[in-house]
Amino acid sequence: MAKKRGKSGKGGKKPAEPDLRRLLRVPGGKPVDLAAFAADALPAGPGNKAEGLAATAGMGEELAGLQERLYAASTAGDRRRVLLVLQGMDTSGKGGTVKHVIGLFNPSGCRIRAFKAPTREELNHPFLWRIMRALPQPGEIGIFDRSHYEDVLIARVHELVPHRRLGRRYGQINRFEQSLVEDGVSVVKVFLHISPEQQRRRLLERLDNPDKHWKFNPGDLDERALWPAYRKAYEIALERCSTDEAPWYVVPADRKWYRDWAVSRLLLEQLRALDPRYPKGDFDVEECRARLLA
Amino acid sequence: MAKKRGKSGKGGKKPAEPDLRRLLRVPGGKPVDLAAFAADALPAGPGNKAEGLAATAGMGEELAGLQERLYAASTAGDRRRVLLVLQGMDTSGKGGTVKHVIGLFNPSGCRIRAFKAPTREELNHPFLWRIMRALPQPGEIGIFDRSHYEDVLIARVHELVPHRRLGRRYGQINRFEQSLVEDGVSVVKVFLHISPEQQRRRLLERLDNPDKHWKFNPGDLDERALWPAYRKAYEIALERCSTDEAPWYVVPADRKWYRDWAVSRLLLEQLRALDPRYPKGDFDVEECRARLLA
Repeated sequence: MAKKRGKSGKGGKKPAEPDLRRLLRVPGGKPVDLAAFAADALPAGPGNKAEGLAATAGMGEELAGLQERLYAASTAGDRRRVLLVLQGMDTSGKGGTVKHVIGLFNPSGCRIRAFKAPTREELNHPFLWRIMRALPQPGEIGIFDRSHYEDVLIARVHELVPHRRLGRRYGQINRFEQSLVEDGVSVVKVFLHISPEQQRRRLLERLDNPDKHWKFNPGDLDERALWPAYRKAYEIALERCSTDEAPWYVVPADRKWYRDWAVSRLLLEQLRALDPRYPKGDFDVEECRARLLA
Repeated sequence: MAKKRGKSGKGGKKPAEPDLRRLLRVPGGKPVDLAAFAADALPAGPGNKAEGLAATAGMGEELAGLQERLYAASTAGDRRRVLLVLQGMDTSGKGGTVKHVIGLFNPSGCRIRAFKAPTREELNHPFLWRIMRALPQPGEIGIFDRSHYEDVLIARVHELVPHRRLGRRYGQINRFEQSLVEDGVSVVKVFLHISPEQQRRRLLERLDNPDKHWKFNPGDLDERALWPAYRKAYEIALERCSTDEAPWYVVPADRKWYRDWAVSRLLLEQLRALDPRYPKGDFDVEECRARLLA
């Protein structure tokens, strides 16, 4: 994770290429103190909003191209795919990230799932059951707006399960994610880090605009009052479940344009590393051409 | 359906507002002759590509706004939603339409499903089973790339089911779609109409570009040879299944920019007619504000 603000990309649209995955990654197995990370920092990012928006839009073409190659490769048996897991407090911008970042991709190849409070049917299954049913298929970009981590976050804060059962879930999650990686899934887990002051501003904005009242739930204020407990639950999850196979990244999210830039950039780096290739056709091109022109 | 080219929107980005749903709609119950419709026509559309692309992009903000209101209304119990059904011959641009038109929306609220050859499990169920499992939820925009119509198209051309069973399917489809409409689903069925010459050009383009070979299947040439049989199957489906509740629209699709404009416009007209509203909050705004500021 970036402990201080990185270079601000003075070069305009073409700053030196950061290694954002290295910079924002949570080193697992060590205690995490989220208070040490400024939610309004801009690690390695563009220096201002205008540059940030331009830089994010500028990634669109390459992202869509990589996505097409990933999908194309899957038609020839490549099982690789990407799963973006988004977590964060209310108003941290999970929905906005899906809209602005996934909007850069071809929607056909994206499998988006928002997890709400579990249904009765879901509660009758192991907590990973509903997750497994929503996974991206080979060649796809999957996006989880909330995820199996709720089962160690809200479940911990509200003591929804006995302590021992909760404690076992971290290992279950790690083994589950390991199995995903072995099956070709690149798991990119992003914690959208906002400050309580920023949340207050965003909730007030919703109250001030009647067109946004549908997004507001007075129960959100009860959850807000539990901020320290949630922060602690996140710190434990980040410590125990940031693994080499499936690392957690902390993205400062007080500024929406930085958040979108950083998540886009993390996906870009991941897709570049996968370097998917168009498969070769296994048919006779000239014969097909002759048939078409006949 | 438009039998001749409509006004070409000389006013640039702001042509007179067409009623495209009326213009492109197939009057059901009468024989349909697709040969009478030019696949390169531009009914009521912008006059050229540059204007067309600008006009389509220009609809984005209103489309996304209407989508947000539709979704917002669903959180207060409004069950309305939209289902766009895309059908057309190979290379008619179903995938491209999803990419360019649905790209104008918020991907979170879109439920996209491409139907391929049925799996063994799907074949063990009634043909509408897999369709019902893929329907949009209230507030969503659903998109089907191919659909239950394959069961009266490829099924007819290749005689996959006995003739009597095939004949019953048209009525089954109409009753099914009627039930969707009664449950709040606006069903928008679009036939992307291309000419065989345009298909030849597009298939040749794929052959000429090794990066597109993955999209090419020599079996597509066998299907192409059945063009007249497919046209007949489409004509029968359009005649029997264009209903007041769930009409078919024929969109000339030889020009991709017109296709994207027309499908965007059909969705815009449909969403405007729905006129979804933000629900009112049922909480005490001032009390919540006071709690936040405490």
